[in-house]
Amino acid sequence: MSDAIQLIPNNSLITASPEEGRQLAIKMARLIIKATQPDAAVRERLRGVYAEDAGMLIAIGQTVAVEFATIAAANNYWK
Amino acid sequence: MSDAIQLIPNNSLITASPEEGRQLAIKMARLIIKATQPDAAVRERLRGVYAEDAGMLIAIGQTVAVEFATIAAANNYWK
Amino acid sequence: MSDAIQLIPNNSLITASPEEGRQLAIKMARLIIKATQPDAAVRERLRGVYAEDAGMLIAIGQTVAVEFATIAAANNYWK
Amino acid sequence: MSDAIQLIPNNSLITASPEEGRQLAIKMARLIIKATQPDAAVRERLRGVYAEDAGMLIAIGQTVAVEFATIAAANNYWK
Amino acid sequence: MSDAIQLIPNNSLITASPEEGRQLAIKMARLIIKATQPDAAVRERLRGVYAEDAGMLIAIGQTVAVEFATIAAANNYWK
Amino acid sequence: MSDAIQLIPNNSLITASPEEGRQLAIKMARLIIKATQPDAAVRERLRGVYAEDAGMLIAIGQTVAVEFATIAAANNYWK
Repeated sequence: MSDAIQLIPNNSLITASPEEGRQLAIKMARLIIKATQPDAAVRERLRGVYAEDAGMLIAIGQTVAVEFATIAAANNYWK
Repeated sequence: MSDAIQLIPNNSLITASPEEGRQLAIKMARLIIKATQPDAAVRERLRGVYAEDAGMLIAIGQTVAVEFATIAAANNYWK
Repeated sequence: MSDAIQLIPNNSLITASPEEGRQLAIKMARLIIKATQPDAAVRERLRGVYAEDAGMLIAIGQTVAVEFATIAAANNYWK
Repeated sequence: MSDAIQLIPNNSLITASPEEGRQLAIKMARLIIKATQPDAAVRERLRGVYAEDAGMLIAIGQTVAVEFATIAAANNYWK
Repeated sequence: MSDAIQLIPNNSLITASPEEGRQLAIKMARLIIKATQPDAAVRERLRGVYAEDAGMLIAIGQTVAVEFATIAAANNYWK
Repeated sequence: MSDAIQLIPNNSLITASPEEGRQLAIKMARLIIKATQPDAAVRERLRGVYAEDAGMLIAIGQTVAVEFATIAAANNYWK
C-alpha cells in the first residue's frame, strides 16, 4: 500500500447530506483498494471480476455499510 | 460505480417507524450494488444466482443488518 | 425483495427481555432472507443446505449477533 | 429455528466480570446454532468439521467478538 | 469449547496503553480458538494453514479489529 | 504471533486528521498480519496473491473500515 494516495477526499468525514456521505463511503472503500493495488490496469481487470460476481458485490456492500456507519456518526446522522 | 445513481431515497436516514427503517436498509444495500454494477441485465442475472444460494442470502442479511444499525441509531431507535 | 413482507414484527425494536430481543433478532434476520427469496419452497430447500453446513451456521450466527446489537442498544440493554 | 430453546442463559446480559461476559458470548453464539440446527447429532458431526478448519475457527472468533461487544457495552465494560 | 480456559487475561479489559490493548485483542481472539479447539496439536497444525493463507490472515485481522474496538471503548480510547 | 512487533505506531490512536487516521488504520491492519505471519518472505509472497484477488481486496477493505471506525471514534471524528 502506498501512503502517497489520498485516502479521504478533502481530508474530512463531514458532508452536507446523507447522500454525499454515502458517496464518500464508496470513495473511501475504493481508495483502500487503490492503496493496496496501485496498478490501475490490474484494478480494471479485477473490476470485471467483482462486477459480475454476486458474492463479491454483496461483500462490497458490507464494506460500504461499515464505512458509512462511521461517516454517519461523524455527521451526527445529519440531524 | 456511478455517482449519478441516488444512493439514499429522499436523502435522509430518518423514517417514521422501524419497519420503514428496515425497508430503507434494504434499499440502501441494493443501491450500492446498483452503483457498482449499473447494468440492469447483469444485476437481474446475478439475482438468479444469489436468490438460490444460501450463503449469499446470509451475506445479504449481514449487509442489511449493518445498514439498519446505522439507520436505527440515526432515528434514536424510534423511541 | 418485496416491500409487502412485514420486516419487523409489531414494528418495534422494544422487547420485554433480552431473551425476547434475541428471538426478535432471529426473526428479523429470517425476514430479510424471506424478502430476498419470497418463494417458500426455495427457502425450504436452502434450509436443508445451511442447516447441515458448519460455515453457513456460523455466518447465520454473525448476522444474528449484529441484529441483536441494534436491538440491545434500542432497549438500553434492558437495564 | 425453534423458539423453545433458551437463547440467553438467565435471560440477562449482565455478568459479574469480563471473563463471565466472554463465557456468555460463547454460549449465546452456540445457542443460535442450536436454534438453527436443533438436531444434536448433526451439530456433533459439524463440530468435527469446524474444529479442524482454520477458516471456520476464525469465523467463530468473529461471531463471539460481536456478541461480546454487546455484552461489554451492557455491562458498561465492567468499570 | 471448554469453560476451564481463561478467556481474558487478568479478567479485565483495561490496559495501560493502546499497544497493550492491541496485544489483549490478539490474545482474546486466540483464546476463543483455543476454547473451541482445545487440542494444542491440532491448533499447531492449523497454524501452518492460516499463516500461509492470505484470505485467512485477512480474516484474523477482521476478528482482532472487532475485539480491539471493544477494548478501546472500555478504555475510553486511552484519552 | 509475536508480542515483540509494535502493533500501534507511536502507541496512540490520536491523529492530526482523518487522512492520517486512515493511514493508521491501514498500518494497524497490516501489523496484525505481520504479528501473525512474522516471516517477511511469506508475507511478500502472499501479497502477490491478495493484490490480484478481488475478493481479498474487498476483505482488506472491510478490515480497514473496522479499524478506522475505532480510530475515528477515538478522535471524536476530528470535530
